[in-house]
Amino acid sequence: MALIVHKYGGTSMGSVERIKHVATRVAKWHRAGHRLVVVPSAMSGETNRLIGLAREIHALPDPRELDMLACTGEQVSVGLLAIALKAIGVDAVSYAGWQVPIRTDDAYTKARITGIDTDKVNADLDEGRVVVITGFQGVDSRGNVTTLGRGGSDTSAVAVAAALKADECLIYTDVDGVYTTDPRIVTEARRLDRITFEEMLEMASLGSKVLQIRSVEFAGKYQVKTRVLSSLSPPDMDLAEETQSGTLITFEEDEAMEQAVISGIAFNRDEAKITLTRVPDRPGVAYAILGPVADANIDVDMIIQNQSQDGSTDFSFTVHRNEYDRALAVLRERVLADVHAKDVLGDSKIAKVSVVGIGMRSHVGIASLMFKTLSAEGINIQMISTSEIKISVVIEDKYMELAVRALHKAFGLEQAV
Amino acid sequence: MALIVHKYGGTSMGSVERIKHVATRVAKWHRAGHRLVVVPSAMSGETNRLIGLAREIHALPDPRELDMLACTGEQVSVGLLAIALKAIGVDAVSYAGWQVPIRTDDAYTKARITGIDTDKVNADLDEGRVVVITGFQGVDSRGNVTTLGRGGSDTSAVAVAAALKADECLIYTDVDGVYTTDPRIVTEARRLDRITFEEMLEMASLGSKVLQIRSVEFAGKYQVKTRVLSSLSPPDMDLAEETQSGTLITFEEDEAMEQAVISGIAFNRDEAKITLTRVPDRPGVAYAILGPVADANIDVDMIIQNQSQDGSTDFSFTVHRNEYDRALAVLRERVLADVHAKDVLGDSKIAKVSVVGIGMRSHVGIASLMFKTLSAEGINIQMISTSEIKISVVIEDKYMELAVRALHKAFGLEQAV
Repeated sequence: MALIVHKYGGTSMGSVERIKHVATRVAKWHRAGHRLVVVPSAMSGETNRLIGLAREIHALPDPRELDMLACTGEQVSVGLLAIALKAIGVDAVSYAGWQVPIRTDDAYTKARITGIDTDKVNADLDEGRVVVITGFQGVDSRGNVTTLGRGGSDTSAVAVAAALKADECLIYTDVDGVYTTDPRIVTEARRLDRITFEEMLEMASLGSKVLQIRSVEFAGKYQVKTRVLSSLSPPDMDLAEETQSGTLITFEEDEAMEQAVISGIAFNRDEAKITLTRVPDRPGVAYAILGPVADANIDVDMIIQNQSQDGSTDFSFTVHRNEYDRALAVLRERVLADVHAKDVLGDSKIAKVSVVGIGMRSHVGIASLMFKTLSAEGINIQMISTSEIKISVVIEDKYMELAVRALHKAFGLEQAV
Repeated sequence: MALIVHKYGGTSMGSVERIKHVATRVAKWHRAGHRLVVVPSAMSGETNRLIGLAREIHALPDPRELDMLACTGEQVSVGLLAIALKAIGVDAVSYAGWQVPIRTDDAYTKARITGIDTDKVNADLDEGRVVVITGFQGVDSRGNVTTLGRGGSDTSAVAVAAALKADECLIYTDVDGVYTTDPRIVTEARRLDRITFEEMLEMASLGSKVLQIRSVEFAGKYQVKTRVLSSLSPPDMDLAEETQSGTLITFEEDEAMEQAVISGIAFNRDEAKITLTRVPDRPGVAYAILGPVADANIDVDMIIQNQSQDGSTDFSFTVHRNEYDRALAVLRERVLADVHAKDVLGDSKIAKVSVVGIGMRSHVGIASLMFKTLSAEGINIQMISTSEIKISVVIEDKYMELAVRALHKAFGLEQAV
C-alpha cells in the first residue's frame, strides 16, 4: 500500500465525460489499496476565460483580486471530481488551498509555496478517503488567496507529494511521457522510460512544455519520485501496466542511463536577440547594459560577450519575444548613449535549439558533433551557450525544424539505448 | 457619513459592462463620504451552469461538494468588482465568506448564518476601502464551505448590514421597488414608497420574487433598514434622488401607512391541491395524514379541514407543484388505508391569490370585498386561508390574471394613498 499523488491537467478535466474518466482511474488505484491524493487543474479554457473577464475591465488588473478570481476554476474542478468519485462509491473530500492549508508568500499571481499542513489530509487518508486538493492556489500568512502562476498545478502536486512524503507523484497529461524531441517535428522521436531530474530541468527550461519548471525544481529539491504519463489511456487499463508507463524522473544515474549520451533535443521560438555593437570594454559594462533591462522587469536568457577587439566588443543577449520591443526601447533610451555603444541591433526571427544529456559530462565531442551536423545542413550558428548537461545554439528560425531533425538523427535518438 | 451595504443581483453583475456600472455607482456613494460594503451575486446564469455540471455527473450530487462548486460564482464576482473599483481609483478589497468569516451551520446548500466577524471589515473601512464580500456563501465551524440556498445573497447582505450595524441596506435589483402587484399582469400596478416588514414577509412568502424570504426575516429580526431599488437607473444619477428611490421596508406603522388598508396583491402558480375525501373524523387524523408527508420531506402550505358531517370530513392541503406526484404516491401507499378515507383527489391546475396589508388588522370587510369581487367575475373559490395581515384563496389557475386585475382595481391600489 503506497501513498500516491495524481495530478490531472486542464485537458484531462475538460468535460464532464473526462472528469468521470479521471474518477474511474482514481477509483482503480484506490481500490487496489493505495492512499490517494488528487490535484486537478481547472477545466481547460476556464482560467483564460476568467483572466479575460478581468482584462476587459482593466488592462492590468489588481494582482490580489486577479488571484481571487483566477483560482476559482480549480475549486470547481475539485468539487466536480469529488462528486464524480462519490457517484461511483468512492468516499472523497475536496479542499481548496486555504483549507489544507497550502501556505505561500504573498507574491500574487506568482506565489511560492512556503509550507503545507498535512494533518487534515492524513486524517482523511486514514479514514480511507480520497483527498482532492486544488492545484494552482494557496493562501498567504494574512489569509489572502494566492496563485502560483501558469502551470502551477504541477508544482502544487509535487509540493503536496513532498509534504506527505508520497511514494510517487503521477502527472497525468495529454502526452504519454517525455520524448527525445517533439514527435510533431521528428516522427522518429522516442518516449524515454526514464530521465534524470537535471535533464528534465534543462528540457523544461528550454521550452519542452511537459512540466512546469518550478515543479521540476521542487521534485529535485525534495527528491519526489515523479512520473509523467498519459491521461488518455483507458482509465481501466491494467494497474501494473499503468505503473510502468510514461516517463519516470529519476535521481540516480543508473547503469542504463550512463550509456545515453544525449536524452533529447529541446527547442523554442519564444526568444528574440538583441546586440549592442562596439561597446567600449570597461569594468561594469555588463551591469550598465542589463541593469536597466532588469529594472524594467524583463528577463534575460542567453548572454554573450566576446573577447574585445581594439578595446570594444559586441554584447548580445536574448529576451522573450513578447518583451522584445520594450527591451529595445529601454536600450535606446537609457543605455545606448550611457555605455557609448555604436548601435542597438535586434532580431526576433530566431530559434533556440539545444541538446540535453547527463551523459555529456563524461563524453567529449558532443559539441563538435552538434556543430558539424548543423554545418552539413548549411545552418549558420548565431550564438552558443553551454551548461554542464546542455548545449544551446541560436539559429535563424526558419531552420529550426531542419536542425531538430538533423540533430535527432545524428545523436541516434530514434534507437532505444 | 453613514455605513451603507449595497447588494447587487446576478442580472446587475451579468456582464463586464454591468459590473463597470456597479463600480461607478458604488464609487459615487463612496466619494460622497459613506463607508461602503458591497455584496454581489454571481453573474447571471453562472450558479445554474455550475450546478448543471454537477448534475450531469450525478443526479443528486454530494451537498458539501456542491457547495464547494456553487459558491465559486460569487468569488468571481467579488474579484471582478474589486478590479473594476480599483480601475476607477477607488481602493477596494474583496473577501470570500470564509475570509470575513461569515459563520454558518453545516446544513450544506441551505445553511443558516450563525455569526459574522466584523473586525477585518471595520479595519478596511477605517482605511477608506470599499469592502466587497461574496453573497450566498459562508463557512462552518470545521472550515467547510457552505451556501445559503437560492437567493441567499439577499440574506448575506442583510446579515452583513445587521452585524456591522449599517445605517441602511440597499438591495439593487432589476425592478425598481416593490409593487402593489406584478406590473406585467396589471399595468396600473403602483410602486410602493414604503412597506412594513410584516407585509413584505407575506408578499415574499406568497410568491413575490423581489426579496428572498429569509432576508426579510433577518431584516425584521435585527431591524435592518432595507431598501429595494433599481440597478438599472443611471449609475451617476443624483445621490439624494437615489437615496429616496425604490421601496423602503419599515418597522413603524406610521401615519401614512395606517390609511393603506391593502398594500398589494400576491399570487403564484407553484402549488397543487390534494384532498382526502370522507376521512373519519377522530383525534390525530391530521397528524396521521401529514406525518408521512413530512417524513417524505414534502413541505405543506395551506391546510383546510372543515367541520365534519356525519362523522367524516374532507381534508385538503397544498404542496409545491414539483412535489405533487410524490405527495400523491405517499398518500396512496401509506395514508389512504390507514385513515380509512374514501379517496385521494388532486389538482395541479390551481393558483393562489392573496391580498396583503397591515391595515387589515383594523379594518373590517376586507374579506367580503375580496369574495364579492371574485364572485362578480364568476371565479369559484376552492380554498381560503387567512393570517392577521393577508387573505389567500385558491382558484382555478386560468382565472389567476383576471382575479389579480379585479382585486387590484377593487382595492383601489392604482391610486397613491
